[in-house]
Amino acid sequence: MVDSLHTYLEEKTAYIETHLVPALEKEGVPASLYESMKYSLMAGGKRLRPMLVLAVLEALEKPLERGVPFACALEMIHTYSLIHDDLPAMDDDDLRRGKPTNHKMFGEATAILAGDALLTRAFSLIAESYLANADVQPTTTVKLIAELGKRAGATGMVGGQMADIEGEGKKLDLTQLEYIHQHKTGDLLVAALRGGGYLAEANESQMRALTHYGFCIGHAFQIQDDILNVEGDEKQLGKAVGSDADREKATYPSLLGLEESKQRLDALITEAKTALAEVGLQHSALMPLADYVKNRTK
Amino acid sequence: MVDSLHTYLEEKTAYIETHLVPALEKEGVPASLYESMKYSLMAGGKRLRPMLVLAVLEALEKPLERGVPFACALEMIHTYSLIHDDLPAMDDDDLRRGKPTNHKMFGEATAILAGDALLTRAFSLIAESYLANADVQPTTTVKLIAELGKRAGATGMVGGQMADIEGEGKKLDLTQLEYIHQHKTGDLLVAALRGGGYLAEANESQMRALTHYGFCIGHAFQIQDDILNVEGDEKQLGKAVGSDADREKATYPSLLGLEESKQRLDALITEAKTALAEVGLQHSALMPLADYVKNRTK
Repeated sequence: MVDSLHTYLEEKTAYIETHLVPALEKEGVPASLYESMKYSLMAGGKRLRPMLVLAVLEALEKPLERGVPFACALEMIHTYSLIHDDLPAMDDDDLRRGKPTNHKMFGEATAILAGDALLTRAFSLIAESYLANADVQPTTTVKLIAELGKRAGATGMVGGQMADIEGEGKKLDLTQLEYIHQHKTGDLLVAALRGGGYLAEANESQMRALTHYGFCIGHAFQIQDDILNVEGDEKQLGKAVGSDADREKATYPSLLGLEESKQRLDALITEAKTALAEVGLQHSALMPLADYVKNRTK
Repeated sequence: MVDSLHTYLEEKTAYIETHLVPALEKEGVPASLYESMKYSLMAGGKRLRPMLVLAVLEALEKPLERGVPFACALEMIHTYSLIHDDLPAMDDDDLRRGKPTNHKMFGEATAILAGDALLTRAFSLIAESYLANADVQPTTTVKLIAELGKRAGATGMVGGQMADIEGEGKKLDLTQLEYIHQHKTGDLLVAALRGGGYLAEANESQMRALTHYGFCIGHAFQIQDDILNVEGDEKQLGKAVGSDADREKATYPSLLGLEESKQRLDALITEAKTALAEVGLQHSALMPLADYVKNRTK
C-alpha cells in the first residue's frame, strides 16, 4: 500500500500541477503580478486539498476532470493564505518550502496584490469553468462557491488565522487551540471534501461521511504538524524543528504530551476511515490518504 | 434635477447602508476581525458602485431588493481594496475619508486579514443570497461571480493597482495612464453596470449600452479625480489638493492640461448618456448619476 500510495500521490500531483498554471490568466495581467502569482502557486507543496477533491470524484466513480477547476481554486486559496501569512506584518517568514517567500522575491506590495489576485481568481475560475461545463449544474456551482467562501473567509480560514495571531504569547487551552486549528487548517480540507461531494453528486449520507472525514483529517493534520515540530527531521520538513517550543506556542504536545497527542491522532484517523467505510467507500483512495496525513514526515 | 438628485443619493445611500452590516457574518468570527471589517465598510464613501446596481434595476423596472447582495458585494470589494491600498507597503496612508485608516486603528495584520475576509465574503454573499432567491436563476448568479472576479482580479482592479505602483516615479504616457485607470477604477464600475444588467435581465443591446456607459463614467470619474486634485476644496475632499503634482504623478491635467481634461470629461459624460438614450433609458436615474460623476466636488 505504501508503494501504491506513493505512486498515487505522484501521479495526482503531476496531474494537478499540469492544470494550475493554465488556470491563471496571463493576457492583460502586469507581468510582475503574473510572475509573482505563478511563483508561489508552483513552489511545491503536497497538493493535499486538490488531491482530496479528485479522490472524492474517483470514489464516487465520476470523471476526474470535473473536479479540476474546483481543485485548482482550492490550491489558489491555500497559496494566497501562505503568501499573506508570510508577510512581515504577519509571521514574517523569509523561507517557505526552502525557497524565498513571495515578498522576499517580489516585494511586499506585489505579494499583497498577488495574494488578493489568487483569492479572486479562485472564485472566477470556478464560475467561468463550470459555466462552460454542461456536466455541472449552475446550482452546484453556486453551492461550491458558497461552501468555499464560508470555509475560507472570516468564519473559516481567515478567522482561524486571526485567532492564531491573537493567541500569540498567551496561554491557550485545548478548546482555543482546537478553534484555531479547525478554522485555520481544517476548514479548507472540509471544503475540499464537501465540494468534491457536490461535484460527484454524493447523496446525503455520503455527504455527511465526507464532511466528518474532513473534520477528522483536518484535526489530525494539525496534530501531526505539531508532533513533527517536536520530533521531525529538519531536512525533510524544510523548516526548523523545535520552533514551537522556542516560541512557547500552544501545541497538542505542549498541552497533552507527545504520547496522548499520538493516541488522539490515531483515533482521529480511525474515525475518519470508519465514517467512509459506513457509506461503502472503504475501497477509495481516501482511506490511504487518511493514513498519509498521519504518517507524513513533511 | 440637482435637488432631486441630492434626495436620490441620500435615499439610496441610506438604503444601501442599512444592508451592509447585516451582510457581514458575525457568529463564529473573532470580534477584532469583525470590528475591523465593519469599521472600514461603514466609514462612509459615495456608495457609487452599489448605487449603480440599484439604478440599473430601477431603469429596467425590476425590484431593487434583487440587487442588494450584489451591490453589497461590490462595496465590500471596493472597501477591501482601500484597506490594502492604504497599507504601509502600498500607499502608506494614515487617513481615509478623514478617519484613521484600518491598519492605524487595528494594526497591519488585522487590516490584511479584514481585507481578505471582505473580499471572500463578497463572493459567498452573492452565492448564498441568490441560492435562496427564486427570482434569480443560478446561471445568472454564476455569471455575476465570473464578471465580478474578472473585473476585480489580476485582469481588472488588482492589475490596475499593480500597474499604478510600478508606474510610480516614472514618466507615463496617456496609454499607460488610461490602462491604470480603466482597471483600477473603471472595471469595478463596469462590473456594477453589467451585474445590474444580468440581474435586471437586460437584453443584448441594453447590456452593450450599460457596459459602454460604465467604461465612459469610469474614465470620467478618474479625470474628475485628477481635476479635483488640482482645483478642488481640501475640506470637501478630505485629502490634500496638489498632492499629485507634488509627487510628480502622471495625471490627465499633467499630460493634457486642465482645459483639455475638462473637455474630455464633458465628452465622456455625453457619450455615456447617449449610449443609454439609444436603448430608451433616457429617463433613468443613470442619466443624472452620470452628471454627478462629472460635477462631484469630493
